[in-house]
Amino acid sequence: MATLPTPALPIFTATVTAPTNIACIKYWGKASVELNTPLNDSVSITLDQADLRAVTTAAASESFETDRLWLNGEEEIGATTSKRFRACVDEIRALASDKVDKDGTVLVSKEKWQTMKVHISSYNTFPTAAGLASSAAGYAALVFALAQLFCAKEQFVGQFSTIARQGSGSACRSLYGGFVAWRAGGTCANASDSIAVQIATETHWPEIRALIAVVSDAKKDTSSTSGMQASVRTSELLQHRVLAVVPSRMKAITHAFLEKDFETFGRITMMDSNQFHATCLDTFPPIFYMNDVSKSIIRIVHAFNEWDGGKIRAAYTFDAGPNAVIFTLDCYEIELCAIILRYFPGYETNYVRNPVVADAVQHHNLRPEFVSFMDTKTALVPSIGVLSSIYCTKSGPGPQVLSASDSLIDIKTGLNNYRPV
Amino acid sequence: MATLPTPALPIFTATVTAPTNIACIKYWGKASVELNTPLNDSVSITLDQADLRAVTTAAASESFETDRLWLNGEEEIGATTSKRFRACVDEIRALASDKVDKDGTVLVSKEKWQTMKVHISSYNTFPTAAGLASSAAGYAALVFALAQLFCAKEQFVGQFSTIARQGSGSACRSLYGGFVAWRAGGTCANASDSIAVQIATETHWPEIRALIAVVSDAKKDTSSTSGMQASVRTSELLQHRVLAVVPSRMKAITHAFLEKDFETFGRITMMDSNQFHATCLDTFPPIFYMNDVSKSIIRIVHAFNEWDGGKIRAAYTFDAGPNAVIFTLDCYEIELCAIILRYFPGYETNYVRNPVVADAVQHHNLRPEFVSFMDTKTALVPSIGVLSSIYCTKSGPGPQVLSASDSLIDIKTGLNNYRPV
Repeated sequence: MATLPTPALPIFTATVTAPTNIACIKYWGKASVELNTPLNDSVSITLDQADLRAVTTAAASESFETDRLWLNGEEEIGATTSKRFRACVDEIRALASDKVDKDGTVLVSKEKWQTMKVHISSYNTFPTAAGLASSAAGYAALVFALAQLFCAKEQFVGQFSTIARQGSGSACRSLYGGFVAWRAGGTCANASDSIAVQIATETHWPEIRALIAVVSDAKKDTSSTSGMQASVRTSELLQHRVLAVVPSRMKAITHAFLEKDFETFGRITMMDSNQFHATCLDTFPPIFYMNDVSKSIIRIVHAFNEWDGGKIRAAYTFDAGPNAVIFTLDCYEIELCAIILRYFPGYETNYVRNPVVADAVQHHNLRPEFVSFMDTKTALVPSIGVLSSIYCTKSGPGPQVLSASDSLIDIKTGLNNYRPV
Repeated sequence: MATLPTPALPIFTATVTAPTNIACIKYWGKASVELNTPLNDSVSITLDQADLRAVTTAAASESFETDRLWLNGEEEIGATTSKRFRACVDEIRALASDKVDKDGTVLVSKEKWQTMKVHISSYNTFPTAAGLASSAAGYAALVFALAQLFCAKEQFVGQFSTIARQGSGSACRSLYGGFVAWRAGGTCANASDSIAVQIATETHWPEIRALIAVVSDAKKDTSSTSGMQASVRTSELLQHRVLAVVPSRMKAITHAFLEKDFETFGRITMMDSNQFHATCLDTFPPIFYMNDVSKSIIRIVHAFNEWDGGKIRAAYTFDAGPNAVIFTLDCYEIELCAIILRYFPGYETNYVRNPVVADAVQHHNLRPEFVSFMDTKTALVPSIGVLSSIYCTKSGPGPQVLSASDSLIDIKTGLNNYRPV
């Protein structure tokens, strides 16, 4: 007579997406490496998740023997003991509450959550570690997925962001949509005041557009973490930036964003990107994230503005890599994209990752006098293969919850079931 | 009966050479545009004139109807009315003294000099306006030639340098050999305290070598003059550099040079070059003088030092252009040149502009483990045509007087007789 199979221990999952964010006032340099607090306030625009997002499933079960993590379909052995990962899992779990069904029956008590191991699977829809804020999206998704899984409750507004911050500093800003500040904080012992705060939602200034020029072969050679520590140690300009420059820029750009003043917003964004890269160059040995392609894009944007009498219609910003993010307004998007395509054409399907914009650009005729002006000012000639893709996107909301059917963890085996295409 | 020809009015000439200089603490930003005084002290090494020099003849005659100037064989119409040119001619002439022969007979009185127009012919032995201090050498040669011509006498030590400064700021440092500081001064009304001072002669530290990697097609796109004015106007980091960084660096590098401490000298030189370019990047719109080739050279130098346990054996510096000047010591010169030739080979005759070094490099075998280390650290592969030439030189003396037979002005016609080869 056959024995009945042991009833399997249940596996609980939560699957979410989280956005990247692009800083307009840059975070560079930690006040405390231990607490992962920044030397200065920063502010960013959360990007729409249509193209650029991290997708993460967090699963927990009494049947799991150990914490496990898969990134982009590959298991990362040992990664679950990293300080960053542990901070996220352990601190979110400490905020767990009872999981109850719609009748109020406790399915998992808050105490029971503490005894379970987690399996995490996560992927990005865009290149990892290329200066496109993959770690921001990734840690925001991790924290948000864990918070869903454990039914975690914030004890104060922004607490989840203080936890995401410990995974990756800028991840704290990816927990909110729209225009988001990260207050440096650090005056409390545990830095619970180093939090992200939403300044405006993504609906406040819907005309804002972000064009992302992804430079081919753009894997960066100095990680942000080691780069900023070198800057803190060796750049004499960084402290001055932190103390004397950033505070007034934070005020001015916040005001500009709320007033929808693109002129001021754009100018400060460009100046702050340049100053961040200046402190990288003032680091010893110097750190270079921008390359000659980045500089060409800077020239294009300045010429694009100069064509309209110096009015700021587009504003570039570069994170820790050569890729450009160019903010503009909807009314300039097509012309800007068209002129970038003139100098950096691409013939792959989906080179411009937005069919509506791609189509509009194809039907847009650049005025000959404009092209001639741009050619002269930029001294550029068209060259193929320099950019790998161009995203045309906008600001978007914070993390989103997906349905159980989107789980990246097999509900029966508890193992990763995501395979990169 | 034929009339006797009118005796021709005599033409007086003086022909000199002047060196370039390469700043270790950079001059960037004017305190007064009117007086051409700098925001901060700077210090430079005067380079040997064997390869890099300006050659200038200054001629004067009562027969000249107007001031005229030829640069590299071409007459520069209108250039003699420029403020820079006039300051040099008029202020040196104001210091004129009687020209006497060996018997004490006055050939030209100091008053007579004031009535004569000048003809100037000048050329560089290296590319103009490519960030190789051509204007420094040029204006130093102009001032020194005029001083010879007019038998000018300084009323205080360094007065000629205050005049050269008005031609081109860094020209004041090219009036001396060796290691030369430019004291910012500017406390007197006429800035007569903004002068160059020799710290050490070229014989003090004879082991110092300078390797100059000239990047192909390196004509710069922002002139130093307009670039530094934009930096003063827009860079919030520049003032901090001027007030809080440069003074201690000036002290430390002067001490290091006098003590022949290459470690400190090299580190400060590299850091100051990086900081200068950082303030250019912090300018709005940003100014880029270095390109991807410059960055590759920076990587080579850091890897070269790292190979020897981090000991600073070579130190790069970049002026307002992509060309690198690498200071090193004689004992490292051949290996350094050989490794640069590995990544930037050139097959033109005279690619390495020093037959002795070129020969030694050709017979130098790079150790395979060193090459493999460098390949890994720099991630570079050899590419031809990137550099146009490599100068291997050292520190040298100030301006030199040439003989009448070297004159670039025809003694009979008073016109330029220099033709570029």
